[in-house]
Amino acid sequence: MYTTENLALLTDLYQLTMAQGYFQSQRLAPSTFSLFVRSYPPNRSYFVSAGLQDVLEFLERFQMDSAGIDYLRSRRMFTDDFLDFLKGLKFTGDVWAIPEGRLFFKDEPVMEVTAPIVEAQIVETFIINQINFQSLIATKAARCVHAAGERSVVDFSLRRTHGIDAGMKVARSSYLAGCAGTSNVRAGQHYGIPIVGTMAHSFVSSFEHEIDAFRAFVTSFPNHSTLLIDTYDTVAGARKAVRVAKEMAARGQQLQGVRIDSGDLAQLAAEVRKIFDEAGLKNVKIIGSGGLDEYDLADYANANVPYDSYGVGTKMGVSADAPWSDVAYKLVEYDNRPVLKLSTGKASLPGKKQVFRICDKQGQLEKDIIALRGENIAGAEPLLKKVMTEGKITVPLPSLEESRSDFLSEFARLPEPIKAIRNSAHYLVEQSSKLQEHCANVEQRVSRAQ
Amino acid sequence: MYTTENLALLTDLYQLTMAQGYFQSQRLAPSTFSLFVRSYPPNRSYFVSAGLQDVLEFLERFQMDSAGIDYLRSRRMFTDDFLDFLKGLKFTGDVWAIPEGRLFFKDEPVMEVTAPIVEAQIVETFIINQINFQSLIATKAARCVHAAGERSVVDFSLRRTHGIDAGMKVARSSYLAGCAGTSNVRAGQHYGIPIVGTMAHSFVSSFEHEIDAFRAFVTSFPNHSTLLIDTYDTVAGARKAVRVAKEMAARGQQLQGVRIDSGDLAQLAAEVRKIFDEAGLKNVKIIGSGGLDEYDLADYANANVPYDSYGVGTKMGVSADAPWSDVAYKLVEYDNRPVLKLSTGKASLPGKKQVFRICDKQGQLEKDIIALRGENIAGAEPLLKKVMTEGKITVPLPSLEESRSDFLSEFARLPEPIKAIRNSAHYLVEQSSKLQEHCANVEQRVSRAQ
Repeated sequence: MYTTENLALLTDLYQLTMAQGYFQSQRLAPSTFSLFVRSYPPNRSYFVSAGLQDVLEFLERFQMDSAGIDYLRSRRMFTDDFLDFLKGLKFTGDVWAIPEGRLFFKDEPVMEVTAPIVEAQIVETFIINQINFQSLIATKAARCVHAAGERSVVDFSLRRTHGIDAGMKVARSSYLAGCAGTSNVRAGQHYGIPIVGTMAHSFVSSFEHEIDAFRAFVTSFPNHSTLLIDTYDTVAGARKAVRVAKEMAARGQQLQGVRIDSGDLAQLAAEVRKIFDEAGLKNVKIIGSGGLDEYDLADYANANVPYDSYGVGTKMGVSADAPWSDVAYKLVEYDNRPVLKLSTGKASLPGKKQVFRICDKQGQLEKDIIALRGENIAGAEPLLKKVMTEGKITVPLPSLEESRSDFLSEFARLPEPIKAIRNSAHYLVEQSSKLQEHCANVEQRVSRAQ
Repeated sequence: MYTTENLALLTDLYQLTMAQGYFQSQRLAPSTFSLFVRSYPPNRSYFVSAGLQDVLEFLERFQMDSAGIDYLRSRRMFTDDFLDFLKGLKFTGDVWAIPEGRLFFKDEPVMEVTAPIVEAQIVETFIINQINFQSLIATKAARCVHAAGERSVVDFSLRRTHGIDAGMKVARSSYLAGCAGTSNVRAGQHYGIPIVGTMAHSFVSSFEHEIDAFRAFVTSFPNHSTLLIDTYDTVAGARKAVRVAKEMAARGQQLQGVRIDSGDLAQLAAEVRKIFDEAGLKNVKIIGSGGLDEYDLADYANANVPYDSYGVGTKMGVSADAPWSDVAYKLVEYDNRPVLKLSTGKASLPGKKQVFRICDKQGQLEKDIIALRGENIAGAEPLLKKVMTEGKITVPLPSLEESRSDFLSEFARLPEPIKAIRNSAHYLVEQSSKLQEHCANVEQRVSRAQ
């Protein structure tokens, strides 16, 4: 976590009213909650797990401060004995989770939390908030990187992300899912992500003549200048960049690239490439940006539009075509009694579970099986790992680079139809026969009890 | 600002590379940047200004810390003299802005920043990030509150917002735009917003029998219990809530309400209302939630669906139908020379400006005129106020309650067709003849110079 704020009160009020209800009715038994996504957003058939490290660090540190308790007391809703209990409350539970960077699918628990119910409940809001958003962005970024093919993709979204935390987490999640870097300097500093930047229109327009702006910029950055050429007229801008590149060459320097940020990006790339090639400047790269998303990048890849890399901003940073996912954190067991809800369209799988992944002989992902926690499936990899025991992180957390490399290696083994940008095929996810039997039994018991 | 983190590096790398370019070419003259939205997202014809307080507090505090400077040094892109300059840098500029809670329209500057160009440039990313997001959410919330008619709307979005900062700012922006409260406890604590909460499905399913859960909850909150009745079967749940309400009545207590969170929300509300009315419990309120947005609320209002209030979550918290806006922060003047860019679809209005609002005799908003800063338009209200002078906040910032009340009073005076949830009419925004003349002159001068 990049912030040191006390976030224990970053929760929904009903978590605290329920907590008082549990406390006063002495329901302090262990419970298990399961976090999963109920459906795929449009055009998606997989999710990339992200956000676990922030959640674990939050859980390890969880404790109300006295300003928080004073505030709650001032609401006149809570009893003094409950507030005293809350003041001393820490998170003492166990967490199983699918590690960051791994793929997961609809209905699969990406995390299961077992803790006294008050603890597991109060932390729900933060857990969903972080895992939902970071996985959403990692998934969107994976789509962009996949669509771009061999071209690299860089995160330019900070100005349009939903606030500060989103800006930080988009940089991290998109790097995890294969982006090459970010424009966000603070994310570079905090996460060790490569930082990337060019210049803006304002730099150009602050000079009376565009070419003077180019000359001033390459004087400051003789070894890594990317010139923005669309402030007035992109083709004319490209010709001026050629002049500057030749002046640099005469000084033994090399212009790194140019960026196009508006207009018909596909057509302009071709024109600009031609201008540089004819000037003998084949090494000058062209970067495309300006409202791009994976649909554009896939079209450009198909049409061989000659961009060398892309700056992808807004639409990746807010996951514009799917800015939310239908994630849920559901009670699946209380005091060793498996439970479920039967609400329309919102049924859940009872009991502690495990997800098993089966690959074919070439290592390609073949199918997953959702099973009960205790099951064993020969030749299959159990995906949920125990990452926290009694409130303490018990395994060394992978570095961001390690998680990124885990992602890249597994994503390469996901069949192409499932990765398709449009009309993707669904990955096979089965439920073990023991889990199915368990569901039927619990459903019957719960229905009868009402 | 609710966080004490140093956010000076929360900027795009190109702001810093340009800063070094400006520094080394001695371009340190004052510049003016204008922040505006270039187009309306679907179904929208107005924006609600929000985020100014965070921006002003950020600007007043702006300074790099030594860890930040060390990090930049380690990138080997910046010269030592520039890094020394950066270390001492503060924001010393002036800011004009349309106050929070006021309405603004396409192309109108909602903020203008005048400062030495390096300063105005480095803070761009943060300014856009906050004003864009908070105004986007305030606008979405205004639509929800308007659509709900006389029913109140409460923010339930924290779990699905894009991270921590988004969760805090959604609570604030939606309250600013007329929501009645939030489920976000930390936002309640920090901003003084009323907090609201009921109970979750997990509370119900942790008990073997639904009615026992209801009884336990009302025991803890005899004066403000809202029971969630859709965990298993909503109609049966309503009947159990009636039993509990009668038990409470026998003790001299009163059940406050029930919540429905799934299924056919319109039909279930009618059935549940009938059950309570027939039981003589007309005072028990019904709260609707579960994937609602302004389109649903407008339909329910038209059909007189008997909800008393709504919890609106995800779709408001991410502005689901418009998760970003086409906001820009453009250089409009450098060293007293007005400038603009001519990029396709991204042209900007040069020079320092003012926005004038004209109302009719009944006080209804009639039209706005974008003019040059120095102009005077008789009978019109100038909307941009000078809020910062030489880096210091120079006017008392309104409280959140004051801004909310400013919003409610102005919104009531915006003609209905412009507030329509679907197919809204556009508000008339003109440009003064002086501004038009100015634009033509500057465009001619800039084009000739290239």
